[in-house]
Amino acid sequence: MNLRTPGPIPVPDDALEAMSGPMINHRGPEFKDLLYRVTDKLKRVFETQGDVYILTASGTGALEAAIVNTLSPGDRVLSASGGAFGDRFGGIAETYGARVDKLSVRWGTAVSPDELRRALEASRDVKAVLVTHNETSTGVTIDLEAISGVVREFNKLLLVDGVSSVSSIPLRTDSWGCDVVATASQKGWAVPPGLAFLSFSERAWQAHSQARMPRFYFDVAAYKRSFENGQPPFTPTLSVMFALDLVLDRMLEEGMQSVFERHARVGDMTRLGMKALGLSLFADERVASNTVTAVNVPEAVDGRGLLEVIREEHNVVLAGGQQSLSGKIFRVGHMGYCTPSDVQEVLDALAVALPKLGFAPSGAVTKPG
Amino acid sequence: MNLRTPGPIPVPDDALEAMSGPMINHRGPEFKDLLYRVTDKLKRVFETQGDVYILTASGTGALEAAIVNTLSPGDRVLSASGGAFGDRFGGIAETYGARVDKLSVRWGTAVSPDELRRALEASRDVKAVLVTHNETSTGVTIDLEAISGVVREFNKLLLVDGVSSVSSIPLRTDSWGCDVVATASQKGWAVPPGLAFLSFSERAWQAHSQARMPRFYFDVAAYKRSFENGQPPFTPTLSVMFALDLVLDRMLEEGMQSVFERHARVGDMTRLGMKALGLSLFADERVASNTVTAVNVPEAVDGRGLLEVIREEHNVVLAGGQQSLSGKIFRVGHMGYCTPSDVQEVLDALAVALPKLGFAPSGAVTKPG
Repeated sequence: MNLRTPGPIPVPDDALEAMSGPMINHRGPEFKDLLYRVTDKLKRVFETQGDVYILTASGTGALEAAIVNTLSPGDRVLSASGGAFGDRFGGIAETYGARVDKLSVRWGTAVSPDELRRALEASRDVKAVLVTHNETSTGVTIDLEAISGVVREFNKLLLVDGVSSVSSIPLRTDSWGCDVVATASQKGWAVPPGLAFLSFSERAWQAHSQARMPRFYFDVAAYKRSFENGQPPFTPTLSVMFALDLVLDRMLEEGMQSVFERHARVGDMTRLGMKALGLSLFADERVASNTVTAVNVPEAVDGRGLLEVIREEHNVVLAGGQQSLSGKIFRVGHMGYCTPSDVQEVLDALAVALPKLGFAPSGAVTKPG
Repeated sequence: MNLRTPGPIPVPDDALEAMSGPMINHRGPEFKDLLYRVTDKLKRVFETQGDVYILTASGTGALEAAIVNTLSPGDRVLSASGGAFGDRFGGIAETYGARVDKLSVRWGTAVSPDELRRALEASRDVKAVLVTHNETSTGVTIDLEAISGVVREFNKLLLVDGVSSVSSIPLRTDSWGCDVVATASQKGWAVPPGLAFLSFSERAWQAHSQARMPRFYFDVAAYKRSFENGQPPFTPTLSVMFALDLVLDRMLEEGMQSVFERHARVGDMTRLGMKALGLSLFADERVASNTVTAVNVPEAVDGRGLLEVIREEHNVVLAGGQQSLSGKIFRVGHMGYCTPSDVQEVLDALAVALPKLGFAPSGAVTKPG
């Protein structure tokens, strides 16, 4: 099975084997070593000297943690969104009582630094800016470096959904001034789901001391206190930590620059391959993501049927569109250790399946003119 | 290594192997089958026809879910506690703005039905009662059947911390009228940590419709909606679900009555063995737990040193005391597939280690008289 959803993603064999390691006492010395070792490596990938905490949750749990640890009910925030996950991030803030100013851009496009600047000029009293670095629902990556520069001009807190970016696409937590960055284990980290990671800057800690949104399970203060004793506040997903320990070694040994370049190459190849099939990309190509590619389902084709044929006849698992995009796009995940031949399998499957469903891939027809 | 903490606990080999199963699409048909199959089996163990949801969280996350899904800020609740986890449950309710009446009993004892009745007579306007079925910090099991009877007399909502009881000690969710029961995978379920399970009764749903505590990640309404489509609202800890699927089959095949009896036997053996060594039990023996035994560290002995010697020289991992009990008790977990010989190893290790630390186990000295 070629699992090409944008998370969970295939896990290297040795990391899968590490998942069957026997249980240990999460309050004992063995865990303490593991916690410090893994956290240290996570910080290197996040490029931060600040704190990074390991939560037992999905990425959404980490997004919730980003909100409730820095804000109070009634705080005004600016939520920039161009997709389902951007909307979710703003929705969490609303749920906890923030007043959310929405900067919505067309799905498939990225918020621009100028748009953000204008929005912040119009809403000078916002406390924090919420952005989605890589919008998994549309396959768009924003220019986070430029965006963070604008947020710094206005001296706002910057909360980043980095769920499908950190470890695959450059995200320089400290040098870009990202105060909180949330991500999850089943994305570019190439281990199974079950853990989320949250960076927390000095400025985020200052916000925490004022933040009155209720929090218990996700309270980073509990994580900080326990961390000092080499413990988790609550029992963590040990098995995923075993696997992560191993994959982080490999990642850092390869070097993050090489990891990012691999993702860029495989992203390019996916986009070129889709276009060569005569398909069109959903996202504006100038901001297309190197971890997930969203492709328009051709008019004549039934989107759900396409995914079913690809899965049942070609053993390739793709993701559909979410919410309003259901049936209209399909998405190909290419994070982690996705190789050119993994992508080629997807393209080959589409080249066979699409004609059966009423669409002639361009590669299969005589070139016009 | 004989891991005898009260969770995580040893995982059967085949369940550990299942942990290395390859990733699947959590929005695909394979997951749908897994979700429905596992949920159905969980309901049989919970003895409920109501809902059971699988959360990616530790037990504390499930306790938070129990609170925020049924209550509003300002609601008065009665929290019965005789230990660290009972206090935590009440603390979560306070964090989210409930007015918490505390019914505290001495650690090592269990709240009695009469005490609860008196407390409810004094606080007639409480909306919910919070109880800890099995207090992991002290090794005490309350008489939940009798307690739930009292809660029903007063027609209150009953929220149960069943983290270290469900699947090991009888907890009849429906027939005892437990509205919400929370538990976690690394306890008697004998799989690694990473998932928590939450039952939710019809009456809990009625409370949910009025409950205004903020919730997003833990909102059971999101779980309910997704479940109808065979999906999780957020990416779940797949690997633990693979292992759980297998262990639940074994558990149901053995029969829950047999599982409960095994736990009772091994609990008895642990208590008898400790007393035979001349040690005293921390908990009132009439309410001693069959999943975890708390033992007083003898006066002369350094509690932390004892655990270290036991671990390093005998490969037996026990848990220390929590909070005010740190250094004063040690705790032996005997949930899941703990055998008499596992317990014997603990007793043998203590028989060797204690004399070195200044305490002569009774088995090691000539019987008096």
